[in-house]
Amino acid sequence: MALDNIQKLLEPDERLIEKVVSCDREWQGKIFAVEHLKVELPDKSHDMREIVRHHGGAGVCAVREGKICLVRQYRVALGRMTLEIPAGKLDPNEDPATCAARELTEETGLVAGRLELLGNTAGAPGFNDEKTRIFVAYDLSQGEACPDEGELVDVVWLPVSDMVEAIRAGLIEDAKTVVSVLAAAAGII
Amino acid sequence: MALDNIQKLLEPDERLIEKVVSCDREWQGKIFAVEHLKVELPDKSHDMREIVRHHGGAGVCAVREGKICLVRQYRVALGRMTLEIPAGKLDPNEDPATCAARELTEETGLVAGRLELLGNTAGAPGFNDEKTRIFVAYDLSQGEACPDEGELVDVVWLPVSDMVEAIRAGLIEDAKTVVSVLAAAAGII
Repeated sequence: MALDNIQKLLEPDERLIEKVVSCDREWQGKIFAVEHLKVELPDKSHDMREIVRHHGGAGVCAVREGKICLVRQYRVALGRMTLEIPAGKLDPNEDPATCAARELTEETGLVAGRLELLGNTAGAPGFNDEKTRIFVAYDLSQGEACPDEGELVDVVWLPVSDMVEAIRAGLIEDAKTVVSVLAAAAGII
Repeated sequence: MALDNIQKLLEPDERLIEKVVSCDREWQGKIFAVEHLKVELPDKSHDMREIVRHHGGAGVCAVREGKICLVRQYRVALGRMTLEIPAGKLDPNEDPATCAARELTEETGLVAGRLELLGNTAGAPGFNDEKTRIFVAYDLSQGEACPDEGELVDVVWLPVSDMVEAIRAGLIEDAKTVVSVLAAAAGII
């Protein structure tokens, strides 16, 4: 009933929809592309939209005895070290759960007996189609880590309650990690 | 003590840091730019990184009697309708709290007596520096909405518990909104 209501609110609404009139690829990289869209607004006027196109990613929220599994790494885009749940980029058309399981094992050596969708995050829907699927890992067992060449990560387990404090202090910003920590704090996973 | 430990883990670590050797602007749009970075890895080998540069944004989490304030809009990047907390882009060097207060009032007519940082989200730190600062609104009063020209939004208040269900079902994906809903569900705001 609650979901029906939300689903109805998410149905296409002619009063709000922007129609794509034309789409030009402005830039093509290895990881993402940039498109320039001309759109028609509901009042028939025109505007333009700049959009980043990316295949998206998948991450894994692994919690054990009140602690969450994180990888410590350097992010040159942010110019700083981060603590993030294990995650990786999707190959085109790759199944997100397969990607999530692979990245978990590569980065941490953990093997999940079962993965269940926690939810998705679209980081910047105003200009970026990138989406990360977040899975909760159950029935964990420890295997051997095997990071990609050039991928340098450290694995740490930190108390969910400490991570909540760090989010409030602005120290933890990665969206998929913030979502995982808060979901654990809310007791919904 | 807990924060000290996390702060220590976030200090620059020579074993993990990538040094920027060169940086070329590949594409410049109105909303974001694309840079091509050559980086030196800790083992002295080189690699390249494609990075989106964006000024970031600010959003507002307004909760009243167990319901969260959302704007219903169309996102051409995702090709669908979304429900998101009120938010907007930062002007260069703009104070995030000023931006958050302005967007809240423009989109919903709500005026916040006080804003407090909930946390930040970086949606895709692997290739995008975009960050959204999320504020919790307190002492709300209702004024008049005044959306930007061409900005078409509907305001709805939905139960936090229904939104949690919708996140689990993959219906709500916007990162700042997922974070706000889970923070409310966790009782930390």
